[in-house]
Amino acid sequence: MPPPTAALSLPSASSPSLFPFSSSPSSTKPQIGFCPSTRPSPRLPKPISPLRKLMPLSAVSIEKETLTSERPDTFLREADGQDDASVRSRFQRMILEVQDNVCAALEAVDGAGKFKEDAWTRPGGGGGISRVLQDGAVFEKAGVNISVVYGVMPPEAYRAAKASATDQKPGPIPFFAAGVSSVLHPKNPFAPTLHFNYRYFETDAPKDAPGAPRQWWFGGGTDFTPAYIFEEDVKHFHSIQKKACDKFDPSFYPRFKKWCDDYFYIKHRGERRGLGGIFFDDLNDYDQEMLLSFATECANSVVPAYIPIIEKRKDTPFNESQKAWQQLRRGRYVEFNLVYDRGTTFGLKTGGRIESILVSLPLFARWEYDHKPEEGSEEWKLLDACINPKEWI
Amino acid sequence: MPPPTAALSLPSASSPSLFPFSSSPSSTKPQIGFCPSTRPSPRLPKPISPLRKLMPLSAVSIEKETLTSERPDTFLREADGQDDASVRSRFQRMILEVQDNVCAALEAVDGAGKFKEDAWTRPGGGGGISRVLQDGAVFEKAGVNISVVYGVMPPEAYRAAKASATDQKPGPIPFFAAGVSSVLHPKNPFAPTLHFNYRYFETDAPKDAPGAPRQWWFGGGTDFTPAYIFEEDVKHFHSIQKKACDKFDPSFYPRFKKWCDDYFYIKHRGERRGLGGIFFDDLNDYDQEMLLSFATECANSVVPAYIPIIEKRKDTPFNESQKAWQQLRRGRYVEFNLVYDRGTTFGLKTGGRIESILVSLPLFARWEYDHKPEEGSEEWKLLDACINPKEWI
Repeated sequence: MPPPTAALSLPSASSPSLFPFSSSPSSTKPQIGFCPSTRPSPRLPKPISPLRKLMPLSAVSIEKETLTSERPDTFLREADGQDDASVRSRFQRMILEVQDNVCAALEAVDGAGKFKEDAWTRPGGGGGISRVLQDGAVFEKAGVNISVVYGVMPPEAYRAAKASATDQKPGPIPFFAAGVSSVLHPKNPFAPTLHFNYRYFETDAPKDAPGAPRQWWFGGGTDFTPAYIFEEDVKHFHSIQKKACDKFDPSFYPRFKKWCDDYFYIKHRGERRGLGGIFFDDLNDYDQEMLLSFATECANSVVPAYIPIIEKRKDTPFNESQKAWQQLRRGRYVEFNLVYDRGTTFGLKTGGRIESILVSLPLFARWEYDHKPEEGSEEWKLLDACINPKEWI
Repeated sequence: MPPPTAALSLPSASSPSLFPFSSSPSSTKPQIGFCPSTRPSPRLPKPISPLRKLMPLSAVSIEKETLTSERPDTFLREADGQDDASVRSRFQRMILEVQDNVCAALEAVDGAGKFKEDAWTRPGGGGGISRVLQDGAVFEKAGVNISVVYGVMPPEAYRAAKASATDQKPGPIPFFAAGVSSVLHPKNPFAPTLHFNYRYFETDAPKDAPGAPRQWWFGGGTDFTPAYIFEEDVKHFHSIQKKACDKFDPSFYPRFKKWCDDYFYIKHRGERRGLGGIFFDDLNDYDQEMLLSFATECANSVVPAYIPIIEKRKDTPFNESQKAWQQLRRGRYVEFNLVYDRGTTFGLKTGGRIESILVSLPLFARWEYDHKPEEGSEEWKLLDACINPKEWI
C-alpha cells in the first residue's frame, strides 16, 4: 500500500490566462493531510517545490485540438459523463453556465458587439469553447473561454506511486482539468479591465499503485485592473470578492487578497498590474464540496462585481492623453502575461491553442520610453496603488 | 597548470535586445580549439549546453546603475582605459562611433525628431548611454544604446579553474562586456523595422588558476522586419549584409543568415518575426582582430543597408487597414522580445536598466483574435515569408 500522502509536481498553472487548462494543469506540492476536514490556519502562498521548477514543460502531454463546427454538449469522456453527480461533471456544468451568463451580461452592456464562438475537441476527450467579442461599442476585446483537458503527467511527478510495494517503475499519471477563464478590456479608459479564472484539477489513481488516492485541487481568482482609480469602484469590486469569500471562511478574503497582490506582480517594474482582487491555487485542504461551492460562488460574483462599474464608466468623456495612459497600462498587462503568467507562458511552450491563450492580450498596447506620470496626478495615484497595494475595504 | 580549454556557461545573451550588456553577458560552451587560426567548417548554431540551461539567472552579479548628468568619455575602468590598443578599448570606441553615426543618420532622415540621451554609470566601472527618438516625423520609436559591463560570473561556470593544481575552490570570474544595440520602428507601415546589436565579451583570467586563458567572444547581427514585402528592399538589405560578410569569409553570410532565421523564431506561432538578416553568437574560432574588424564592418553597414529604404518608403500613402497590419506585426515583435529573446528575458530577470531593455518595444502594438490574412494578399505574402524563410539573393 502506498502511503496516504502523495506528491505531484507539474509546471504551475495558477494561471489567469484564458486557456490554462488546454495546456497548464494545476500543480501542487507534497500534500499535508489529505483529509477534507483538516483545515490548516491561513497561510501565504507556498513556495514552489524544487521538483516543480525542474519538471520540463514537455513532460506534460496534451493532444492537439481540432476545431469543430458543432458545439458538443459535453467535453467529458463517456465514462465521466455518465455520473452527473461527479465533481468533474458538476464543475463542467458550472463553467458552461458561467460562460453563458457572463457573455450574456457583457453583450447586454455592450449593446452592439456579439461574441464569436469557436469550439474544439481533442481525439481522446476534452476540448473547449472560446468566445470573443472584439471591437464592440463598449469592449475593445472580451474573451470568455472554457476548456476541459485529459492529459498525462510523468510518473516522476507522482512520488506515491514510486513507493508501491511491487517497486515497479510507475507509469504515467492521467489527469483531468477544467476551467473558465476570461479577460475583458473595455474601450473607455475609465472603465477597468477584468480578469477571472476558476479551475479544477484531478488525477486518476495510478494503475500500478493500487489504492493510491486520487488527487484534486481548485484554483482561480478575479482581479481588477483600472487605468484610473475611482475609489467607490475599487471598494465595490473588493466588497463583492469579500462577500463571496466570507460565506465560506473568514480567513479567505485576507489570505486570497494578499495572494492576488503577490501573484500579479511585474517584478522588473516593481509594480502590480492592477488593484488586485482574490487569487488562490492548489487549494485542497478544505472539504471538496465546500470548495466546489466556493469556486461557483466566486465565478457567479463576476457579473455583480463588474457590470455595475462598466455601466457607470462606459460613456465617461475622455481625452487623448487619458487613452494613451490606458494603452500604456495595457502594455504592462502584456508584460505580465507574456513574461510572468504561468498559465500563459506554460501554454505557449507546450502547444496550447495559441489564439485562445493570447486572447487575454488587449487590442492595443503602448510602450513609451521612460514614461513617468507627474507626481500627484491621477495617473501617478494609480501607479502608486500598483506599487503599494492597499486595503480597499 | 589548467588545461588549455575552458568552459563557460551563463544564461545566453545572443540578444537582439537594446541592452544586452547591462545585464546579459554573452555566453558560450566548452571551447574547441582556443586557437585563432583554427577555422572549423560552417556549422549550425550549437545547442545550448546543459550547464548553461541550469545556471540560475541570479548567478551573474551586476551592480545597480546610477543616472549621470554628465556623459563620461569612457566607461572603462582606469586600468583598461590606459591601453588604447586593447580590444576592450577599441571595441568601446567603435560602438560609441556607431551610436553617433546611426543617430545622426536617423535624425537626418527623420527631419523633425531628436534623440534624447540618458547616460548612466556603475560604481565599480561600466555604464551606458541610451538614446531614444520618440514620435518623430518618420520614426515612431528609435532606440540606439551602448553599454559596458564589468560583472562577475560564478566559478561553476568556469571549469578550467576547477582543474587548478592547488585544488582550491575557485573564486568568481570577473568578466567584461560591451555592446551597441538598437531597434528602429518607423511610422509608415511600408517602412521596415530594423534591429542590430554587436557585442564583445571577455573574461579575466581567474586569480586562483594562474595561466588559465582569458576568454573572449563576439556576437551580434542585423535583422529586418517589414510589414510588407518590397522585394527590392529585402534584396538590398540582404546584399549589404552579404557584402559585409564576404569581405571576411565566404561561409559567413549563408551560415549567419540561417542562424538569424533560426534565432528570431516565434515558436508558438511557427513563424519568424521578420525577414531575417545575419546573426551570430559566441564567435571566437577566428582571429580576434579579424572578428573585431568584422563586427565593425557589420555595424558600419547599418546606415547604408537601412537609410535608403527609409528614404524610399517613409512617405508612401497608406490606409487604416495597412496601419493595423503593421501594428499586428509589432504585436508579434513584442511576443518575440518578451517571450524568447534571451537578452531581454535575461535582462528583465537580473535587474538591468528596464527602460533601456524595453525601448525595443514599439510605441503601438495590436492583438486581434484569430487574425488570418486573405490568401494571396500582400499581408499573406509577408506572413508566408515569415513562416517559410527565403533566400533573397
